[in-house]
Amino acid sequence: MKNNQRVRIIPLGGMLEIGKNLTLIEYKDDIIIVDCGMTFPDHELLGIDSVIPDITYLIQNKDRIRAMVLTHGHEDHIGAIPYVLKRIKMPIYGTPLTIGLLKNKLKEHNVGKVDLHDVQAGDNVKLGKMEVEWIHVNHSIPGACCLAVKTPLGYIFHSGDFKVDYTPISGEVIDLNRIAEIGNAGVLCMISESTNIIREGFTMSESKVGETFNRIFAQAGEQRIIIATFASNVHRVQQIINAAEKYNRKVVLSGRSMLNVTETAMKLGYMKVKKDTIIDVKDMNKYDDGDLVLITTGSQGEPMSALTRIAYNEHRKIQLTPNDLVILSAHPIPGNEKAVSSVINKLLESGAKVIYESLGEIHVSGHACEEEHKLLHALVRPKYFVPNHGEYRHLLHHAEIAESMGTPRENIYIMENGNVLEISQSGAKLVADVPSGDIFVDGLGIGDVGNIVLRDRKHLSEDGLIAVVLTLSKKEGRVISGPDIISRGFVYVRESGDLMDDARDVVKKTLSRMENQKLGDWVTLKSAIRDDLKRFLFDQTKRNPMILPIIMEI
Amino acid sequence: MKNNQRVRIIPLGGMLEIGKNLTLIEYKDDIIIVDCGMTFPDHELLGIDSVIPDITYLIQNKDRIRAMVLTHGHEDHIGAIPYVLKRIKMPIYGTPLTIGLLKNKLKEHNVGKVDLHDVQAGDNVKLGKMEVEWIHVNHSIPGACCLAVKTPLGYIFHSGDFKVDYTPISGEVIDLNRIAEIGNAGVLCMISESTNIIREGFTMSESKVGETFNRIFAQAGEQRIIIATFASNVHRVQQIINAAEKYNRKVVLSGRSMLNVTETAMKLGYMKVKKDTIIDVKDMNKYDDGDLVLITTGSQGEPMSALTRIAYNEHRKIQLTPNDLVILSAHPIPGNEKAVSSVINKLLESGAKVIYESLGEIHVSGHACEEEHKLLHALVRPKYFVPNHGEYRHLLHHAEIAESMGTPRENIYIMENGNVLEISQSGAKLVADVPSGDIFVDGLGIGDVGNIVLRDRKHLSEDGLIAVVLTLSKKEGRVISGPDIISRGFVYVRESGDLMDDARDVVKKTLSRMENQKLGDWVTLKSAIRDDLKRFLFDQTKRNPMILPIIMEI
Repeated sequence: MKNNQRVRIIPLGGMLEIGKNLTLIEYKDDIIIVDCGMTFPDHELLGIDSVIPDITYLIQNKDRIRAMVLTHGHEDHIGAIPYVLKRIKMPIYGTPLTIGLLKNKLKEHNVGKVDLHDVQAGDNVKLGKMEVEWIHVNHSIPGACCLAVKTPLGYIFHSGDFKVDYTPISGEVIDLNRIAEIGNAGVLCMISESTNIIREGFTMSESKVGETFNRIFAQAGEQRIIIATFASNVHRVQQIINAAEKYNRKVVLSGRSMLNVTETAMKLGYMKVKKDTIIDVKDMNKYDDGDLVLITTGSQGEPMSALTRIAYNEHRKIQLTPNDLVILSAHPIPGNEKAVSSVINKLLESGAKVIYESLGEIHVSGHACEEEHKLLHALVRPKYFVPNHGEYRHLLHHAEIAESMGTPRENIYIMENGNVLEISQSGAKLVADVPSGDIFVDGLGIGDVGNIVLRDRKHLSEDGLIAVVLTLSKKEGRVISGPDIISRGFVYVRESGDLMDDARDVVKKTLSRMENQKLGDWVTLKSAIRDDLKRFLFDQTKRNPMILPIIMEI
Repeated sequence: MKNNQRVRIIPLGGMLEIGKNLTLIEYKDDIIIVDCGMTFPDHELLGIDSVIPDITYLIQNKDRIRAMVLTHGHEDHIGAIPYVLKRIKMPIYGTPLTIGLLKNKLKEHNVGKVDLHDVQAGDNVKLGKMEVEWIHVNHSIPGACCLAVKTPLGYIFHSGDFKVDYTPISGEVIDLNRIAEIGNAGVLCMISESTNIIREGFTMSESKVGETFNRIFAQAGEQRIIIATFASNVHRVQQIINAAEKYNRKVVLSGRSMLNVTETAMKLGYMKVKKDTIIDVKDMNKYDDGDLVLITTGSQGEPMSALTRIAYNEHRKIQLTPNDLVILSAHPIPGNEKAVSSVINKLLESGAKVIYESLGEIHVSGHACEEEHKLLHALVRPKYFVPNHGEYRHLLHHAEIAESMGTPRENIYIMENGNVLEISQSGAKLVADVPSGDIFVDGLGIGDVGNIVLRDRKHLSEDGLIAVVLTLSKKEGRVISGPDIISRGFVYVRESGDLMDDARDVVKKTLSRMENQKLGDWVTLKSAIRDDLKRFLFDQTKRNPMILPIIMEI
């Protein structure tokens, strides 16, 4: 009955978005979860700390989950795991750095007793009737892998995040040979990332950045060097340390995540650092500027990061001077451009020299460009193709490239989160959807902030609030105190006394107009106050504050 | 007593920012105002509509103001004029398109009876003891000029916004010959824009975009073409119309400002359009897709713009189909990247084809790159130099380039808004500052929203609001109604009933603890309620809503 066999691919995140990657691969009673990431919210999601995938489907099917398998240790691939583990237990497999970073994260979230397993590239793990193989790829974090998931219908190949780097910093070139073997064995479906698919050509090698660092260090003389980059970019940090050791500088690590990731990477043998290279920030003043390199977080202009605090002269231990040379070794993530600009301006105003992306080869991406994707398609030659890890424009462009590489258009599926792609011997089709969506994390709350709360926050953020308070006598139905008007975020009240007095008069008029009716009918009364005041305030100010009538009854 | 003569340069906007340009040139009792622009607020300025310069100094010195002279008609150069004219009357001079666009703006703001004067490039206007000459430059709007202000101490040269376009769409190449003559006559000080100073090389000619349009139109066949661009980019609109006429397509203009600017430009002879080319949107259905081009606003993903409404299927008259070819002929302004991406994704999801900047030469900047700036410095050879129209990093880089072109470093001033640069025969120096800053416009309010209101809006936007209301008896000092708790933007109350009940209990406990003290001491009572509830809520939710204790007394 081979015809009855079906593999199902269900993305719960990472489709039509760059973030919160989570893909399910199902065969009969077995479910494998590939990655479980979060997204940082954009400006519209007021007050939200992070966004995680809806895992209703996982909870409903928890008995079928064999394991979670991880491609690499970036937040958009592991960031939602603590939230999931609080609801469902399962074994988790990943390379040592991925698992190491996950352990740090679980500790922060007080998630204990988790069934974690280290694997190495080349390892196979049997999970129910499927078997997962980790295959080495190049990316901006060590220990990154793609996955070949062997099913009775053929391989499901999941690219993870990758690039092709022929001169990587540590480890090998992406394992093209093993990928070619998998391709030859027959890939039923490839799921592949699309982050840089719209960029032509090849992504430059990480080692290019090292050459630039060497040039800069050679010329830096007596200047202190400060370099900001992503804490998770272990290769980049390694290259800075290499340059520091070559030019006899001590290294200071700054920023909690920088210390955290680098310590984990060193402990697990992902970095080569001489014994005395790294010094504590408190020993910094024992050295001359020309003998120091600071490696910090904050390359995205994050408000609380080390670099931002240094730039705004709010860092307790690091003061900027005109003898500093600051390098921003990163590209601003869309949405962060303004924050990064502001930090650059502040650094320059202090007299420091600043080198940022448009001024030199001090950053390369960790994601494949178009030609690298074509190489992967040529090797894997999948029957079906699902682009992921991209907005619609990325997925669409990736679909076009897949078609140009020989996958028939009708075998390419641009999926949404929650779609279910069912593949059998007789073909593939999208079947009924499963629950999916964005769950907002705000403080300790998970999912308690939804669209109504966000709509209110947006309303409050634009024009503030007017509370109208009055006390009614239940017996007589008349006003015995108030109306009082309190505002926040609307106008500067001390200079708008007249407006507030007039607003109070408007409410008084409403009350006396309503007096003939039953004042006890609060709903009608509140609505009349809201309407009259709204009209008055818009007329006077062309603004629409949130109006909150509050009636006390005694 | 020639030694007593002083020229003063006072920027009230445009320094350490790109926006709200306003520069004063003073000689003895005469003040000339160069430009008077606004800025669009960034995400941090919650609810603010626009930002204009502080004009306290202008009001204090209104008797000395001889005129306002305009370089060109962009919002960041003319947008604040209505607000200034409501406070101070003065004659205003500009080229006809600049004045035409200003007239539209004054009409919208109901500012009547303004003393407006058309000038042409080459014209001189005597204003007190100074004389202003308009000199033609290339820019992304016609009628753009730089200004040579003749003073008894020599010329003050103000570049306005410019680029060097040897193959402009309409009109001439920037008047390098006249600029050279001014340079030869002796320029005391040059003030020059810095927008693209960090970009190497030359800005491409606007006519490059026309070549791309012709290629796209030639291949568009039966597709309907929709092109979004800045309404004020009259050259771009002209090139689209040229391509339309060449390929026998009718043109529909969409978006209020597109209609507004294009109509003004045509009326004033800045555009060449055949009689029957432009049709009304309501006649669109009389034509096949292949016979139409729509030119719309919305190239920045602005929420209410025509293109955004089209993309989200919310436009009353224009429905998108897979037979549409949409071109975004603009570069996202920093801060707008995400909004533009979203619009592109929405357009693609409807099946339309979309061409945006990274896919073709469909936009060029209106601002000079490094080599063009060097050309200007070579021709003008100023004694003193003041870079403007840039953030600190732009101004600093421009200063370095000026120095490399021969202006001594000590004669280059990186100024802040409100700084006063005084230049005499014996030298230049920064003297005491004048009032300056950002004035926020919110609805009809000008300057009534300041830092306190913005701080409240930010607080409200992040964690919402909790109002605690109770009624006290004045006589007995006891609670006779409440405490009631009302929240907005905090949690979804229907699913957080327990939390709200517990919060009420916390307040009750505070009240009974305070009962021994005098409840009538509202300040202490409010502060106790706020502290206790804040601690409780942060502990429970790790959030900090604004807490608003409201006490009624009867």
